[in-house]
Amino acid sequence: MEEIERKFLVADDSWRSSVISTNRMVQAYLAIGERAQVRVRSSGDKAWVTVKGQAKGISRPEFETEVPVDFVEGVRSSGLCEGSPVEKDRHVVDVDGYLFEVDVFLGDNEGLVLAELELDTADAEFPRPPWLGEEVTDDKRYRNAYLATNPWASWNRDGDMDVYPST
Amino acid sequence: MEEIERKFLVADDSWRSSVISTNRMVQAYLAIGERAQVRVRSSGDKAWVTVKGQAKGISRPEFETEVPVDFVEGVRSSGLCEGSPVEKDRHVVDVDGYLFEVDVFLGDNEGLVLAELELDTADAEFPRPPWLGEEVTDDKRYRNAYLATNPWASWNRDGDMDVYPST
Repeated sequence: MEEIERKFLVADDSWRSSVISTNRMVQAYLAIGERAQVRVRSSGDKAWVTVKGQAKGISRPEFETEVPVDFVEGVRSSGLCEGSPVEKDRHVVDVDGYLFEVDVFLGDNEGLVLAELELDTADAEFPRPPWLGEEVTDDKRYRNAYLATNPWASWNRDGDMDVYPST
Repeated sequence: MEEIERKFLVADDSWRSSVISTNRMVQAYLAIGERAQVRVRSSGDKAWVTVKGQAKGISRPEFETEVPVDFVEGVRSSGLCEGSPVEKDRHVVDVDGYLFEVDVFLGDNEGLVLAELELDTADAEFPRPPWLGEEVTDDKRYRNAYLATNPWASWNRDGDMDVYPST
C-alpha cells in the first residue's frame, strides 16, 4: 500500500469552523531506521502498529494493523521507544469534500499545527483554503518521528517561520 | 512481561521421540536496534508482532500481540525487513513435563538445531536430557535476529563446535 500525503503549515485558525471530528492521539516510535520506521499509536480505546518504509518522493510504503491498547501501553511504558511520545489532537476538516487532517500538537510540541491531505496520485488537484500555509511535505523536521526525538520546543527557530500560532 | 529463556545446542536427534507438536514458523526483523527489536512472525494461519528489549542477564522484556497474517506478509514482502526471513520447524518436546522448543532451521540456516526452555526464574531447576548440548544462552550469534542478517551457512565454523547435525 502506497501512501501519498502532502503536509502543510497552518496560517491561521479559520479551519476550526469546518471541523467534523476530533481525536486525541498518542504515538511513539519503536524504530526510526534507515530502512523501516515502526510506530505504535493509540486514540481512545483503539491502537495500531504502523510500519513505514523510506519515502520515494511524496509516496511512501505503509502497513498498519489494529492491535490491543494494552500491547501499545505496555510497549510505551517499557522505555523501549525512541525519544518521547508525540501527543496531538487530530481534527478532520472538510474542505469541499476533501478531508484535511489538522494536527494540533501538545506537550513538548505545543504550538505546532500541521495540516495533512492524503491523495491518490502525486499530481492530484486539491483545494487550497486561506488557512493552508507553506507546504512542508519534503521537510523531514515535520515528521512525527523527528518530533519524537527533536520536539518543537527544542527547535532553534528564527522569527520568519510561517507557523501558527506564532511564538 | 519478562521472559527468561535458556538456549542450548542439540547433541543428537533422540528428542524426536518426545515431540508433541510441530509448527513451521517464519520470522523477520523490522528493527534490530540498540534499544528495541521488532519482529514479525507467522505460523500457519496466525501471525504476531513481537517487541523485545535488551536482555539483562537471561531475562528480557517482551511484548507480543497477534495480528492479521496479511499484515505480516505485506511487511515481509515489502523489503522493509533486515536481512532474510528466518524459517524453522519448531518442535515442542516434553521432558518430564518441561516443554523444550527444538528449532530445526531451514533455508540459509539449514543444519542448525537449537533447543529453548522458558523458565519462571533465572535459577529454576530443569531436566537435562542426553540430547541437550552446550548452553548458548549468552551467545548472541544464536539469536534469530543475528541469524536473519548472518545466516548459519555464512558462519566461518571450525570443526570443534558441538552442533547437530555435524557439518
